[in-house]
Amino acid sequence: MWDRFPVIKAELAAFEDYLKSRLSSRIEFLDIASKGVVLSGGKRLRPAFTIIAALHGDYNRERVFPAAAAVEILHAATLIHDDIIDNAKTRRGQMTLSEKHNINLAVYTGDYLFAKSLRLLVDTGLKPEKLNVLARTISIICECEIDQYIGKYDIGTVKNYLKRIIGKTGMLFSASLILGAKTANLSDDVARLFGRFGNSFGAAFQIRDDLLDILSDQKTEGKPVLNDLKEGIATLPIIISASKNPELREMVNDFFDGNGGDINQLIQAVISSGGIKDSEKLKNRYVQKCKSYIEQMPKTPYTDALNEIVDWL
Amino acid sequence: MWDRFPVIKAELAAFEDYLKSRLSSRIEFLDIASKGVVLSGGKRLRPAFTIIAALHGDYNRERVFPAAAAVEILHAATLIHDDIIDNAKTRRGQMTLSEKHNINLAVYTGDYLFAKSLRLLVDTGLKPEKLNVLARTISIICECEIDQYIGKYDIGTVKNYLKRIIGKTGMLFSASLILGAKTANLSDDVARLFGRFGNSFGAAFQIRDDLLDILSDQKTEGKPVLNDLKEGIATLPIIISASKNPELREMVNDFFDGNGGDINQLIQAVISSGGIKDSEKLKNRYVQKCKSYIEQMPKTPYTDALNEIVDWL
Repeated sequence: MWDRFPVIKAELAAFEDYLKSRLSSRIEFLDIASKGVVLSGGKRLRPAFTIIAALHGDYNRERVFPAAAAVEILHAATLIHDDIIDNAKTRRGQMTLSEKHNINLAVYTGDYLFAKSLRLLVDTGLKPEKLNVLARTISIICECEIDQYIGKYDIGTVKNYLKRIIGKTGMLFSASLILGAKTANLSDDVARLFGRFGNSFGAAFQIRDDLLDILSDQKTEGKPVLNDLKEGIATLPIIISASKNPELREMVNDFFDGNGGDINQLIQAVISSGGIKDSEKLKNRYVQKCKSYIEQMPKTPYTDALNEIVDWL
Repeated sequence: MWDRFPVIKAELAAFEDYLKSRLSSRIEFLDIASKGVVLSGGKRLRPAFTIIAALHGDYNRERVFPAAAAVEILHAATLIHDDIIDNAKTRRGQMTLSEKHNINLAVYTGDYLFAKSLRLLVDTGLKPEKLNVLARTISIICECEIDQYIGKYDIGTVKNYLKRIIGKTGMLFSASLILGAKTANLSDDVARLFGRFGNSFGAAFQIRDDLLDILSDQKTEGKPVLNDLKEGIATLPIIISASKNPELREMVNDFFDGNGGDINQLIQAVISSGGIKDSEKLKNRYVQKCKSYIEQMPKTPYTDALNEIVDWL
């Protein structure tokens, strides 16, 4: 993804070493588990955003890397706790911590990574009120996760869905960009612009995930098809189709009630009611929003890297 | 406990209102659950420590209350996650969150309270490097909890036990005092003294808890007798007795291996090998340490309140 941006590529490679160096613990289990989860791949989108935002101002590795690591480690912590709640067996093709060990160790490992993230945040040297970005983000992620959990087995509305995904996914992208901007002394206006870009990117990213959930091949993506639905969560294509097609709504509710149903028939019904197409449209609308935020940003040799990431969606 | 200290009593009463006001969430479940857990009683020892330490310097409610609330809410978060791990059914005579709802909601409610604690910490206006106190404390608590969890069904040594309880319990008492001292601009030396007092207090507090676990009446304390042992955790009286009495060690190991055994016989054996008496001695040694730290502190009308709390042990 970074072939056109050798500086970003070099910074991300150096960041990877930094991240590794900050993950050691005197407790062997935590040392192995933390490194296992954080270093097991992942696209490092959030650190890339932190670095790119910071490259728009006074770039200083000693402030940027702790911020990028804080965000990436916080992301790993939320994945660990999410995997408990979602009963997820695998992630990135590997067994999840809660599956490999047990829920209890997964709870504490997540907590430990939260604390680690907080300590890294302090290392950025940012003023306390700027640190609040991440604290607020965690609050909102938890609120949205709880909202989703309580709303399980309820199809819900597109409006509530969008609010939830921006909280659940957009906020952390947004925080990684804002923190990058703040470490580089960019103005509040520019930081806010980066933040809005992050929220829209997160929405598009989550809708893409929802589309993969219904369209992906289990073998190549490492995630079972319609996994979310099996866990009682209605994804965007389902919500849209159900709002248009009362029969489909009944099928989904039957599915939620545990009366089973034919998954392939359900997928066909979602396609024929336009649930996939409309979801793609909505995703594209967020992609366009991202592009328009990029247009408004101060131009640097790195700004276009944001377009590259958006196009990857 | 505060009859001799009307100022502390008044501050704690005002703090209670402040704490309540800071626990609201727009998600109804979180609002009820957070308030339920944090406001369901508890002795408010940690906020009392924060307030007392701060009363030794430039006392300012606007900085002290957020610090005290951060510590108390962090304490609640750790209790929620601990109750998941310990399979605890009740706490303070009420059903635990993980029992009343389920583990999943308990995981997120704990996370939410972690984030809340962090946001309050930012409100203290302390410099970032001072905020690190709490981040380090969470790291160490997690390390010690994992260490305890992995060491389950293993009697262990007194040395390792002491290291663990100071990390698990002492560190948060210590942090509450240090944060109080820092909000009141006390010197690093005085803050360190308060910190050491907190660690020793925590050790004595935890040994007291261990003694209650073996001696308490289930009905009055709301906790089942030898609950820790049933969960595979050897308390101090057990560790000491097992090191002296090989037969008792075998009894405990049999118990851990799931071969059952007579609880009353076990308790009698602990008493006759001096496990209770020696634990009380060790507790008193930490109480004496606390008193000697109090002696070294700058004298104020509030210093003696620390003696009062220590005597309550």
